[in-house]
Parts: sequence; structure tokens; C-alpha cells
Amino acid sequence: MNHEDLLRRFRVEPGSRFRLADHDPSWIGEDEFGELGHDELKERAKAILARNVEALSKAQELLWADDTRALLIVLQGMDTAGKDGLIKHLLTGVNPQGCDVVSFKQPSAEELDHAFLWRCMKRTPERGRIAIFNRSHYEDVLVVRVRPELLRAAKLPDGLREETFWSRRYEDLNAFERHLDSNGTLVLKFFLNISRDEQRKRLLSRLDDPRKQWKFSAADLAERGRWDAYQDAYERAITATSTPWAPWNIVPADHKWVARAVVSAVVARAIAALGLREPRLDEAAIGRLDEARKALESERPR
Amino acid sequence: MNHEDLLRRFRVEPGSRFRLADHDPSWIGEDEFGELGHDELKERAKAILARNVEALSKAQELLWADDTRALLIVLQGMDTAGKDGLIKHLLTGVNPQGCDVVSFKQPSAEELDHAFLWRCMKRTPERGRIAIFNRSHYEDVLVVRVRPELLRAAKLPDGLREETFWSRRYEDLNAFERHLDSNGTLVLKFFLNISRDEQRKRLLSRLDDPRKQWKFSAADLAERGRWDAYQDAYERAITATSTPWAPWNIVPADHKWVARAVVSAVVARAIAALGLREPRLDEAAIGRLDEARKALESERPR
Repeated sequence: MNHEDLLRRFRVEPGSRFRLADHDPSWIGEDEFGELGHDELKERAKAILARNVEALSKAQELLWADDTRALLIVLQGMDTAGKDGLIKHLLTGVNPQGCDVVSFKQPSAEELDHAFLWRCMKRTPERGRIAIFNRSHYEDVLVVRVRPELLRAAKLPDGLREETFWSRRYEDLNAFERHLDSNGTLVLKFFLNISRDEQRKRLLSRLDDPRKQWKFSAADLAERGRWDAYQDAYERAITATSTPWAPWNIVPADHKWVARAVVSAVVARAIAALGLREPRLDEAAIGRLDEARKALESERPR
Repeated sequence: MNHEDLLRRFRVEPGSRFRLADHDPSWIGEDEFGELGHDELKERAKAILARNVEALSKAQELLWADDTRALLIVLQGMDTAGKDGLIKHLLTGVNPQGCDVVSFKQPSAEELDHAFLWRCMKRTPERGRIAIFNRSHYEDVLVVRVRPELLRAAKLPDGLREETFWSRRYEDLNAFERHLDSNGTLVLKFFLNISRDEQRKRLLSRLDDPRKQWKFSAADLAERGRWDAYQDAYERAITATSTPWAPWNIVPADHKWVARAVVSAVVARAIAALGLREPRLDEAAIGRLDEARKALESERPR
């Protein structure tokens, strides 16, 4: 199986129905790379990550020089799915000056007072830059759908909560991303797919490890109690918003090394497909450089 | 002809083709109110404006108390069409604390570095507030369409300027406004329609009147030279973006008193249709007020 075919397996085809049951969170590629054992696969995945981080770092300079395109990486996943670790591993090595990580927490009163895309639009990346949304505009069709009290907090006029409410939101998300796409922002979306059992292990390890205890919150258990509702909300949202201009990638995330290699590969491939080149100067511009060189060379010492 | 029928005449029906030739910029209502002469019509228009400004001022308090809806008024028109004067007359009397006037000038470098809706989304009104866009997100399908060098300044990637470029932009505008609408923001759009001849008179009066000379810019004449291209861009844009959730109103603007009366009437009617009511307290809340009253009354003097 070649690289391209493999990456396509993680992508949700626009128009198809996405079912979590079709995606194994614990996938490590044993069937695809039959001759390799677990440890070899892990080594290989780490090498892929390292290579792609380097490619991303180089691509970021080209993005900056080209100055017509931006890259927006959207990360979604249940608690403990590994979003923070992924960001750390993917972006360490990229110049922070060209890169913004935006974490979307519970919306502020000011944010709730605007249409839900307001806070996300504000933080979209400038041309030449990369932004990662750690959680994103999708929270408004995920946690807000699972917990109706959050929708009430949004203070929408009563008449607007009609039957088509959620499909309308999906359409808004698609139109928003298409607007970004048609104005030069490449949108890459990843769902870090962990199993319920793996989440249990990770939460227990937070409880047991003194260096991780600060990460634990009682609210994590309450959210875990809504597991099925979240899975349902993800299935609906991803089915409705995997578009030709911004398809979803479903990333097996029970093994962090797998998730990191897969995301890095999708990002590297997408950037390579942009075909960015170092800007070339035309003759007139090169002439001006020559003039500048002469001016500097002929300066008298003071 | 009743009030409602009259207002409907100014509205561009969604799906219909908008032609400027069907709209007389110098309309003052002589045919509709046959028994009235010019001066009487003008008196009547001023009375309508005064009544509607008062209604708007009251409605603004209800908007604020209700706190689920916002109002966005979009004003477009050629130079000298009377946008600034309209804002002054419509909003004087409205509490400035609940009202923002946003003028969209030539975009900044930071604004050009984002998708074109970015700067407009940022300035959309909060729940309970009114915003007026003096020029708006429509500039990106008007002046930018008429003057291709502005599109080049936007630094879009080359591949994106395809045949569907402008229709894509119209769709983005419609989706943006639908998002606002479905999250509680009422969008009212007005094109202040002046004739070429009236613009000539107003520009001359700027040149002749020492108190108005500061308003004149040589660029005004260059823009006037592109009159037909602008009319064409307006016809296309308004045809494509008069939607059920945000239809355009074409306002006869050769007479400022007509334009002000018409816009004020459309705004007042639209707000009335929201059916906003003073918030009523339930019994428990009234009980808490009683407790507070007792606590204050039983305070001992210090």
C-alpha cells in the first residue's frame, strides 16, 4: 500500500456517511506493513514524524515568503485524545513567529454575545502563517449539542431554535471554511480518535502520576459519562462537514506515536501539494539589488 | 397605497433581477400621495423621520433589555449619496452606548492578510446592540470588482481567481449574513440610489462651499469616471445577494429627506416585527425584589 492510498484511508470522503465503527482507534499498521513488528512500526512512525516536522519547518518559510496562503489546522478529540502532545511534537522546530496556537475554551460573555463563528474568524491565520485551533468552531456542534444548557447560555432568540437548527449550523461551518479556502487559507481538519478504554487508562494515569495530577478535573468524568452522546455528535458533524475544500481526517489515536505520524504526514502532503516556491526576482529587481550593492560598496568610511 | 405596500416597492425580491433603471433616484412620492405638493411631502417625510427616530430609540432599550438580538444596518452608495448625513439623522437620539458606527475604509495590511470577511465579522454587533456599517463587506464585490488593482493588492493565490470567483464571493456574503441571522442578528441593507446628475451637483457644491471643501478629494472624480462600472457592479451584487434573510432596500436618494424617511421607516418596521417586549419578572424574582426592599428599609442608620 503506497503512502497516498494510506492517507486516503484516514480521510472522510465528502458526501459519505462517517461511522466511527469503521475506524479502529488502536490501528498501528500491522496489516499494511506485514513484515514489521510493533517496535519497528513505532520506530518508523517516529522517523516519519521527524521527517515531516522538518518539512513543515521548511514549508513554513516558503509560506512566509510566498505570502498569499495560510494554513489552518483544526484539532478535535475527546479529553485525553492527545491534542496538546500532538501540537508540541508537530510544531517544535517550527518558528513560533509564523505560528499561532489558539485554544478555544468555554466562550466568554463577549463571545456568547456574537454569532458563534465570531471568535473563530477573529483568530484565523494571516497570509504566510500557520494557526492550530486546539478545539475549534466545531465545539458549537459538539459540546453545545451534547449539553443543551450551553445552548441556552448562548442567549439565542427563541424563534431560531427550529428543527433545522443543527443542519443550519453545519452549513454555516462549511460556508465559513469555504470562504477561508477561496481566500487562500488551507484548512486541514483532524479528529483524534481514541477508544473509551484508552481514555479510561489515560484518566487513571493522570490520577496516579503526581506529575499529571494537575491535569485531572472532576469535569473530565462528567464528560466521560456522556461518551455515547459525543460519539453521536461527532459522527453527525463529521458526516455533514467533510467537504471537498476541507475534508476530515480520522486519526487512530490510541497510540500517540501513530497519531503524530499520521497528522504530520497529512499536513506535509497537503503543504507539498500547494507547490510553494522560493520567490524569484525579475531582472529589474535584480538590477536594483546591484545598485544597492554598489551604493554600499562605494560608501566612504566615516 | 398603504405603508406596507410602499415599503415593499423599495425592497428587491429575493431571486428577482435587480435593475437600476426600475428605480427612480429622484422619487418623492408625488404619484402615491397625489394630493400633496413638494413642500407638504417634505414636511411629511420629516415627521416620519422624527417619529421613527423616536421609535428606534425606544426599540434600542428593548433590544438591550431583551439581550438576544442585535441589529446590523448596512449602508452602501456612491460618493455623496448621503450615508454620513443619514447616519447622523437616524441615530441622533439613540443612546450611543448601545450603538456602533463602523466605517470601512481602504483595508489595512493586516486586513488584507485575512479572508475578506474577517474585518467585517470582527465588528458585528453584540446582542442588544445596533451597528451601522458605513460601507461594508460589499466593498469586496463593488470597488474591488471595478478596480482590479485592489484585488491584486489582496494577494490571493493565483489559482483562486477562476471564473466563478465573483459568484463565489456573493455566496460567501449570503452565507455570512445567514449565519448572523440564524444567531440573532437582524441584517438590514440599504443602497442609497443617487443619479449621476445629482452627484455632479453635490460634488460642485463641495467645491464651491468653503464649509464643504474639506470633503472633496480628487479621487472622487476618478471614481465618478467609473460610474457605469459601479452601476453594473451594484446591479450584479444586489441581484445575487438580496436574500430572504437579508433583502436589499433601494432607497431613492436624490432628495435627502426622502432617503432618511424611507430608511427610518424600513428600520422601524423591521424592529417592530421582532415583537420585543419589556422583560417580565416571574414570581420568584419579584419575591427576591421584596426581600431586597425589606433589607434596605430595615437598615439601621449609621
